[in-house]
Amino acid sequence: MEHRIVKVLIVYAHPEPRSLNGALKEFAVEHLRSAGHEVEVSDLYAMQWKAALDSADNTARAAGTRFDPSLDSRLAYENGTQAPDIAREQDKLRWADALILQFPLWWFSMPAILKGWVERVYACGFAYGVGEHSDTHWGDRYGEGMLAGKRAMLVVTAGGWESHYAPRGINGPIDDILFPIHHGILYYPGFDVLPPYVIYRTGRMDSERYARIRLGLGQRLDALWTTPPIPFRRQNHGDYLIPELTLRPGLAPGGAGFGIHVDAQAGASVDRP
Amino acid sequence: MEHRIVKVLIVYAHPEPRSLNGALKEFAVEHLRSAGHEVEVSDLYAMQWKAALDSADNTARAAGTRFDPSLDSRLAYENGTQAPDIAREQDKLRWADALILQFPLWWFSMPAILKGWVERVYACGFAYGVGEHSDTHWGDRYGEGMLAGKRAMLVVTAGGWESHYAPRGINGPIDDILFPIHHGILYYPGFDVLPPYVIYRTGRMDSERYARIRLGLGQRLDALWTTPPIPFRRQNHGDYLIPELTLRPGLAPGGAGFGIHVDAQAGASVDRP
Repeated sequence: MEHRIVKVLIVYAHPEPRSLNGALKEFAVEHLRSAGHEVEVSDLYAMQWKAALDSADNTARAAGTRFDPSLDSRLAYENGTQAPDIAREQDKLRWADALILQFPLWWFSMPAILKGWVERVYACGFAYGVGEHSDTHWGDRYGEGMLAGKRAMLVVTAGGWESHYAPRGINGPIDDILFPIHHGILYYPGFDVLPPYVIYRTGRMDSERYARIRLGLGQRLDALWTTPPIPFRRQNHGDYLIPELTLRPGLAPGGAGFGIHVDAQAGASVDRP
Repeated sequence: MEHRIVKVLIVYAHPEPRSLNGALKEFAVEHLRSAGHEVEVSDLYAMQWKAALDSADNTARAAGTRFDPSLDSRLAYENGTQAPDIAREQDKLRWADALILQFPLWWFSMPAILKGWVERVYACGFAYGVGEHSDTHWGDRYGEGMLAGKRAMLVVTAGGWESHYAPRGINGPIDDILFPIHHGILYYPGFDVLPPYVIYRTGRMDSERYARIRLGLGQRLDALWTTPPIPFRRQNHGDYLIPELTLRPGLAPGGAGFGIHVDAQAGASVDRP
């Protein structure tokens, strides 16, 4: 297939550069650049990213008024009065063809500093609250939105064993643990979401295993534009009742849970090191 | 049943006191106190809680050494060199009989500031990395741990409709969205976890509905010590293979996903406003 130059934004959240995460981030940057791609990195700890969404995120608030997270976000976004760090990250997202979120799994989700990146950068009018609401269209989300046409992928490290995250593992299946991020954070504003690259049992690492992990990551990066995305169902194209937004009874009949929002007939491949 | 005096810690994460969350938090405090209970509140925004876990959380680190989040956390916890804000919250947890986490659901999880409370307060040696690891016991967790004997409950607000969080709703079932918190954050270090109190469609509020919501919350608070907890399965009591930590084939045969870690035969009631 034809070689396409891709602009990649890596949003990275680990406090120690001399960590497995730090090494893999450096590897990813070099690997992508040496393949001719353009790379930007938002190294949240190095940037001392402000994690907590608050009223200071709108620089033009009337003093003493009640702070409404969504409304203030919308006003600041529309009026160009967002805090500059927020606007800069939105510019990076507009620029990027692909987004990689790289982080250690802490308490079965992303680190707080990265969650705060999502909360603040995902402004109302930018990542949610976009598009009309009618009885056939419930906003531009879940398959539509400002970030449609772009791709996203998680690179995640976990201390636990792969079996602990298996379909019957005690932590819950990794696909379900990551669903609120894949579907709720990435697919929601329009990204096509690739299967994640997950590294387990990070406390047990040697140079041979690390070499395999790097190799696997390199292959996933090479295939960033050819890997089939997770086939989440689109909200506004007939699969869901509107406004209830429940899956139509004829689809995945009798089923429930995160899995029914993936169109099994479209198929998806998952790759793990 | 006998009236028991309960010490309740409310960890609360909303940036605006004049919000639905702020009003419900105030109501909860007054309701519990007027019933004779003792209440402590950690109002994370008001405290300007530091959300990002980093090397400064161990106040006695050797300069220039590589920061290891778990190892540094363990050393700081064992040596009494944790940042004072972390130690204070751990003291509150030791003091409390019951923990309430109250927050708006932002991007299908807790706000970053609260996630950062979990990451920093849940030290290694306190909330994880506790107990022996052998072929019959995989650490004191998932039903055992330093917080065993205490109860926990979520009070959560969501902008979306209840049907959007139904078993076939597009956001995924609320029980699955909250599982990483219920099971992975609260049950993990030993809490008995009560069904959550979830308030949907917060943008559509009037005084009558608000009165109903307060009434429901008051009833849940009155029943804090009598409500049956979610019957999650204990890790070290025969239900799981060790060290794989997969559910034994004879239990929930053929099943997979978050739901199999609840012992359906034990039964649980879920209450919603």
